[in-house]
Amino acid sequence: MSLIVVGTMAFDAIETPFGKSGQTVGGSATYLAWSATNFVDTVNQVSVIGYDFPQEELEALAKRGVRFDGVERKTGEKSFFWAGRYHLDMNTRDTLDTQLNVLASFDPKIPDSYQGAEFLMLGNLMPSLQMSVIRQMKKRPKLIVLDTMNFWMDTAMSDLEAVLKEVDVLMVNDSEARQLSGQYSLVKAARQIRNMGPKFLVIKKGEHGALLFHEDQVFFAPALPLEDVFDPTGAGDTFAGGFIGHLAATRDISFENMKTAIIKGSALASFCVEKFGTHRMKEITRHDIEERMRQFVQLVNFDIQLTR
Amino acid sequence: MSLIVVGTMAFDAIETPFGKSGQTVGGSATYLAWSATNFVDTVNQVSVIGYDFPQEELEALAKRGVRFDGVERKTGEKSFFWAGRYHLDMNTRDTLDTQLNVLASFDPKIPDSYQGAEFLMLGNLMPSLQMSVIRQMKKRPKLIVLDTMNFWMDTAMSDLEAVLKEVDVLMVNDSEARQLSGQYSLVKAARQIRNMGPKFLVIKKGEHGALLFHEDQVFFAPALPLEDVFDPTGAGDTFAGGFIGHLAATRDISFENMKTAIIKGSALASFCVEKFGTHRMKEITRHDIEERMRQFVQLVNFDIQLTR
Repeated sequence: MSLIVVGTMAFDAIETPFGKSGQTVGGSATYLAWSATNFVDTVNQVSVIGYDFPQEELEALAKRGVRFDGVERKTGEKSFFWAGRYHLDMNTRDTLDTQLNVLASFDPKIPDSYQGAEFLMLGNLMPSLQMSVIRQMKKRPKLIVLDTMNFWMDTAMSDLEAVLKEVDVLMVNDSEARQLSGQYSLVKAARQIRNMGPKFLVIKKGEHGALLFHEDQVFFAPALPLEDVFDPTGAGDTFAGGFIGHLAATRDISFENMKTAIIKGSALASFCVEKFGTHRMKEITRHDIEERMRQFVQLVNFDIQLTR
Repeated sequence: MSLIVVGTMAFDAIETPFGKSGQTVGGSATYLAWSATNFVDTVNQVSVIGYDFPQEELEALAKRGVRFDGVERKTGEKSFFWAGRYHLDMNTRDTLDTQLNVLASFDPKIPDSYQGAEFLMLGNLMPSLQMSVIRQMKKRPKLIVLDTMNFWMDTAMSDLEAVLKEVDVLMVNDSEARQLSGQYSLVKAARQIRNMGPKFLVIKKGEHGALLFHEDQVFFAPALPLEDVFDPTGAGDTFAGGFIGHLAATRDISFENMKTAIIKGSALASFCVEKFGTHRMKEITRHDIEERMRQFVQLVNFDIQLTR
């Protein structure tokens, strides 16, 4: 059940219609680790941090089983920083500031101690770096999941196409699926994208849920309707962390088990958005997750008599 | 299982990125009737038509059990006409032309032969007319469902508030629910709207599915992911027709049965959008509907072990 997680560990500054976060810990690999450790005992983290990344965050993650052999600390530089402002719909946002800092020269290294891992989660990063990680694996993992974004489709499409050929599951949002495929219909987009490499495609639709496509099968999981969405930052990474965490814990990569993984990811994402940054992820218990899974079952459960 | 349906029977002219319909039969009560007659033997129609409404459409509906005692034909006037153009997303549209014609002086009359009906579906119309229909019912129906739109919130809010106090189920889309309640969160919007009268609220989200709220319960049904959405006109009315048709056929207005009604409405709406106007609704068979219900079960069915 060994799992490698690759991505950023960073600072965010978030503005929403409900408040400002100030500088808060974020980054794709941070959210992925907080989320996945609800299901697995160990997460082998690959990232880069500056001198300013808080020691207490690292210690809190270490207590949950996150290993940092693959996390480089550059003592002369600052951590990656992103600032953004959400619109009232909490779905669209403007970037206010991006400071690459340590990320500008990031060259992820897989330590020997991580070799042999069966599950590899490639968080959103430059596609050539995602490819470099895959190339460093001496034995191909049982499952490689890749997250990406429109920015790389605009600026590094041929690198992205190359790495897509090497992965099993692609995760993108609906507008990214449309951009990548050139198809408006998500059913057609899914078919096209699966021809580009990934056998499985997860399309994240935020408050509208998520779709899983594989061969001629499709599964849909709603997002839990919430009283308040306070801060959507990290929800996609938290979803991905729950997804790969469940798969790594069960070592079952069937379509049926991926459905469960989608529901678990959705449940965790529904917590993430309730507070700024990773704060809510630090509070939740196994019982809270179980309770929310129950709400998911309630939400979509129906009984229909079909003739047959 | 007697059902009254009130709404428009009209002409539409629709432009989508995929083509133009030319003048085609439409109207809320037309779609409601085509849809509901998949489940009930008789629909008691209330509407108004001009001299130009095609006799063959009336005959086709009559063959399916639609009664026209409550449909007034004004021989000196034209039928209501709407023209619109859909954007590429097929969710937003511009109105190109509206000609009220017979609708300008519409005063719905409930014939004696309709009295005693247990189910009343009030399609989108001026709220004062919807109220007039309720007032004409000598015995209050077992269930009154009301559809409305943002236009009435802008122009006739006090009439709308008055009629909302008299109905059991309100159907609106997500932006209308937000406008009506002044709440962005749909969970909060639902609570507020249920305080305005309706014990049940259905929020239609188009390609993103539908939500049903009642007391502290919530149910979500996805829309079936489709290869192509050809023309969304009438999808909401077709959904409503399937919903009330199933409830009227089963005479069971429990939350559990409303869940089934939502799925049946969603299945019928998924056919409606496959061709212009009511064309697809005329082709589908009981077997087609059953097959699509099976796809719905597949789409959302998952199995999770919850500790208890």
